[in-house]
Amino acid sequence: MNIKEGELIELTDNKNVFFLKLKSGEIFGTHKGDIKHDDIIGKQYGDTVKTHKGKEFLILKPTLYEIIMHGIKRKTQIIYPKDSAYITLKLGITSGMKVFETGVGSGALTIVMANAVKPDGIIYAYEKEEKHLKIAKENIKLARLEKYVKLIHRDISEGIEEKDFDAGFIDVKEPWKYIKQLKSILKKGAPIGFLVPTVNQILKLLEELEKNNFLKIEVKEILLREYKPVVERFRPEDRMVAHTGYLIFARNK
Amino acid sequence: MNIKEGELIELTDNKNVFFLKLKSGEIFGTHKGDIKHDDIIGKQYGDTVKTHKGKEFLILKPTLYEIIMHGIKRKTQIIYPKDSAYITLKLGITSGMKVFETGVGSGALTIVMANAVKPDGIIYAYEKEEKHLKIAKENIKLARLEKYVKLIHRDISEGIEEKDFDAGFIDVKEPWKYIKQLKSILKKGAPIGFLVPTVNQILKLLEELEKNNFLKIEVKEILLREYKPVVERFRPEDRMVAHTGYLIFARNK
Amino acid sequence: MNIKEGELIELTDNKNVFFLKLKSGEIFGTHKGDIKHDDIIGKQYGDTVKTHKGKEFLILKPTLYEIIMHGIKRKTQIIYPKDSAYITLKLGITSGMKVFETGVGSGALTIVMANAVKPDGIIYAYEKEEKHLKIAKENIKLARLEKYVKLIHRDISEGIEEKDFDAGFIDVKEPWKYIKQLKSILKKGAPIGFLVPTVNQILKLLEELEKNNFLKIEVKEILLREYKPVVERFRPEDRMVAHTGYLIFARNK
Amino acid sequence: MNIKEGELIELTDNKNVFFLKLKSGEIFGTHKGDIKHDDIIGKQYGDTVKTHKGKEFLILKPTLYEIIMHGIKRKTQIIYPKDSAYITLKLGITSGMKVFETGVGSGALTIVMANAVKPDGIIYAYEKEEKHLKIAKENIKLARLEKYVKLIHRDISEGIEEKDFDAGFIDVKEPWKYIKQLKSILKKGAPIGFLVPTVNQILKLLEELEKNNFLKIEVKEILLREYKPVVERFRPEDRMVAHTGYLIFARNK
Repeated sequence: MNIKEGELIELTDNKNVFFLKLKSGEIFGTHKGDIKHDDIIGKQYGDTVKTHKGKEFLILKPTLYEIIMHGIKRKTQIIYPKDSAYITLKLGITSGMKVFETGVGSGALTIVMANAVKPDGIIYAYEKEEKHLKIAKENIKLARLEKYVKLIHRDISEGIEEKDFDAGFIDVKEPWKYIKQLKSILKKGAPIGFLVPTVNQILKLLEELEKNNFLKIEVKEILLREYKPVVERFRPEDRMVAHTGYLIFARNK
Repeated sequence: MNIKEGELIELTDNKNVFFLKLKSGEIFGTHKGDIKHDDIIGKQYGDTVKTHKGKEFLILKPTLYEIIMHGIKRKTQIIYPKDSAYITLKLGITSGMKVFETGVGSGALTIVMANAVKPDGIIYAYEKEEKHLKIAKENIKLARLEKYVKLIHRDISEGIEEKDFDAGFIDVKEPWKYIKQLKSILKKGAPIGFLVPTVNQILKLLEELEKNNFLKIEVKEILLREYKPVVERFRPEDRMVAHTGYLIFARNK
Repeated sequence: MNIKEGELIELTDNKNVFFLKLKSGEIFGTHKGDIKHDDIIGKQYGDTVKTHKGKEFLILKPTLYEIIMHGIKRKTQIIYPKDSAYITLKLGITSGMKVFETGVGSGALTIVMANAVKPDGIIYAYEKEEKHLKIAKENIKLARLEKYVKLIHRDISEGIEEKDFDAGFIDVKEPWKYIKQLKSILKKGAPIGFLVPTVNQILKLLEELEKNNFLKIEVKEILLREYKPVVERFRPEDRMVAHTGYLIFARNK
Repeated sequence: MNIKEGELIELTDNKNVFFLKLKSGEIFGTHKGDIKHDDIIGKQYGDTVKTHKGKEFLILKPTLYEIIMHGIKRKTQIIYPKDSAYITLKLGITSGMKVFETGVGSGALTIVMANAVKPDGIIYAYEKEEKHLKIAKENIKLARLEKYVKLIHRDISEGIEEKDFDAGFIDVKEPWKYIKQLKSILKKGAPIGFLVPTVNQILKLLEELEKNNFLKIEVKEILLREYKPVVERFRPEDRMVAHTGYLIFARNK
C-alpha cells in the first residue's frame, strides 16, 4: 500500500527518529540534509528515502502507540498507553461495541478504544470544552479512526442522548456526580472504568459506586519502568513517571 | 443475544463471583443453593437466575480480561493482561494484521492479539509442545477467537513457512537464536516484541538484536499495584506480583 | 569477645541459616546432626561448630537487621527495616537524643532507634497494651538495648509525663487525636514522624498537622524489591511486599 | 546549646526552606528581606530570627538527612538516604565498630555510617580521587563527624593497611576485582555491602562472591515514592527517582 499525503510517517537512521505528516511540496530538514515529502509520498513502508546529502532514512509506519506518544497534539494531560491499553482490555472493548466516553481531552484513550471497536463499533465521546474537542478531532483523524468515533460537544450533566452502552469510561474531575446517570445509560452488567489522579477522588467515587450498587469494584495503578537498552551497562532509567492516575473499574448492576 | 450452551458466563451476588461454562443438564452448586445451567441458557447477559433456594445471581458476560484471568486453563506461566494489553498496543496490532507468535503456551497473549486482529486478520501461533498446543486451542475456543488463530505445532528452529508478517511476538527461552530467522519473515520496518524473565536473557537478546540491525530497541517492565477498595480504610494490597517478565521491543530493518 | 549464654546467634553451612538463643545444656537439632549449645558458648563469632555427625557450621553474630527479621517475637505487624532505617535517619536520631515513641508494638522500631541513641540517649516508649509491652521488653532485651529504652505502660491520652523530646515517632490508629499533646512535649523545631497504613488516616493526620502549624510536612513510601541472586538467571523475586505503611514527617513549630 | 559560627542551619517561614552555613559578618538575602548571620549566632534551635523587613523565620537544626540532601557539596552521584539508611542497618553498623569503606565519593554514606559508629567507632574511608576526598572531608566536617572518619587517599588495589574490619561497604566501578582482598581485611563472618548501578556489574560481582565463598548473598533495590501532602488533592508526585543503584549484601566466610 502506497504512502499517501496526510499520513503520519516515521523516519529513522538508527540514531534519530522523526515523525512527520506528509504534505506535498514541503521539505523536512534534518542535520543530515533535507528530505522532500514528495520523495516519500508514493513509497511503501519499509522503503528508504535519501536526503539531499545522500544520507539514507528508513520509512516506518507509526504504530498506534507511536501516534499517541509522538504524533498527536496534547493540550491536556493524556491517558498514556500503559493505562489506555489496560483500560481497553479490562473493559473488554472489542469490535462491534458501543462505548461511552467522557471527557475526551486530547483523545488519546478515544483513539485506543476506537481502534478496538473497529470495524463495526463506535465510541460516543462527550467533551464539554470546545477547544479540547477540536484537538481531539484532529488527533483522531491523524490516527485514521474518525469513522469509529462520534464526538459530542456537551457536558454530560446536560444529559446523554444515547443509551444501552456496552461499556463506559469516565475521566472527569467529579465523576461521582454522574453515577446515577451512568447507571441508566449502561447495559445491565456492563463494565465501567474511571481515571482519577487523587486519592480524595477515589474515596468519593467508591462511596457513590457502592451506594448505587455497582459490583466488582477494583482500584489499580499501573507503573511503567523503562531500562536503558545498553548491553554493556544495562540498568533502569534514572527517573520515571511515578503517577498518571488511579484506575477504578466496576460492573453496572 | 441469547446465552448459548458452551459459553463461559459469570455469576455474582455482589459478594461472590463464579465462572462457569454452560452445559445443558448440568447443575452448579453454590453455598446459596443449586443453579441449573439450563436456567441460564437462553437468557440474556444482565438477567438474573435463581438458585433452588431462591437466591438471586446476576449473569455477567466475562470480558476478555476475565476469560484470561478466570476462565482459561493454565498449564504454563501465562502472559498477564497488564503485559498483553501493553504488548498489543506497543506492537500496533490491529484488525487485518498478520501476526507471528511463538511460543504459545496457554494462549493468553494469543487471545488478546487475536481479538485485536478481528475480523480480518490472523495470528500464526507456533508452539513446539503438543500438550501446550492442546490447552491453547481449548482456551482460544473458549474466547471464541479460533477463526483468527492458526495454531502450528512446530519448533520454529525447523522453519517458519509463512512470511511477510506485520508484527511478531516471541516468548521462548532462547529468543536470540532466532533473530536472523525472524528478520526474514517480518516485513521491513515491522515491530517485534519479546518477553523474557531474566536479565541474562535480556543481555543476550540485546546483543543479537543490535548485531542484526534491529532499530529502536526498548526494554520495559510493567508493574500493577492493586488497592483494597474499602472506602473507610483505603490502602494498597499488602503483597503484589513483583515480576512477570521484561518486555523488549524493536523494529525490523 | 566470647559468645555468652543468652545471646542470639546465627549458624550457617552456606545453604541453611538458623537463629538460636543460647542456653547451656540445650541441644539444637538440624538435619545434619545435633549441635550442643555448650559447644558454641565461649567461642568467638566467625568460629565454626560441628554437629555430632561432624558437619561444620559457621557461627555468625546477627546484625540488628537479622535480630529484627529473624530473632524477635512478633505479636503485631512490625515496622520493617526498610522503614525503620529510613525513619531513624529522617528524624535525625543520633547518640544522646531523648526520643518519644508510641505505640511500641513488638518493639522493632524501638530497637533501631535505641541503637541509634546509644550510648547516652534514651527512647521513652509508650504502649497501652500490656501484652505488647511484655513482648517488646523481651525483644529489646534480646537486642541488648534495654539500657536505652524506658518502656511505659500507658495510653498517651492519659498524659505524657516527660517533655522536651528531640524527636518523636507515632504508630497508633488515630494519631490525629494527639497532635496538640505531641506539640507540647516536643522541643521547638523537633522532627516528628508517623506511620499509618491507610490513606484515610493520612488525610486526617495532614489536616490536623496543618491546623497545628507543623512545618515541612512530607508523605513518603518505601518499597523494597528483592532479586534472586542466581548468576545465570538473575531476576526479581516473583512477589513482593507491596505495602507496609505510609510515612509522614513534619517539624514541630 | 547555643548556635555557633560554622554550623549549618535551616530557616523556614512555612513556605520556604533555606540552608545556610553561619559566618559572622555575612548577610543572607531572602525575598522577604535580609537576615544577618550574627542575629542567628548565639540563639537556640527553635528560636526565630527576623529579616530587616520584620518577617520572622524559624531556626531549625538540620537533621543528618537534611545535611546530606541540602547541605553537602556533591561532585559525584551521592548515595541517597533511602539507600544509606538501609545499608547501615543491614550491615549492622553500630557504635564502636571499625568499618571499611571505598570509594568515598562526596561522603554521603560515610556521614551516615560515621554517625552510627559514634562515639567510639571509626570508618576507614578509602578514595583514590584527591578531588573527591577534598569534598568528602569538607562534607564530613559540615556534619561534625570528622572524629569518626579516617580518610585515606588511596586506590585499594595498592593495598589496605588496616584489617579486622567489623563490616565493609564498596562503591567502586569494578568491585569484583577486590573480593579476595576484602576477604582478607574483614573479620570472619563480617557483613559486607556493595552498590552498583548496572546489572552487568551485579552478575560479575555475584560470580566473584560465590567463587570466594561469601555467604548469604542478597540483591535488593529500594524505591522511594513521594506524595504531594495536599489534604484536598492527595496523590503521588508525578515523577520519581527510578534508580540509584542495586544493593548487594553478603557475609565473609
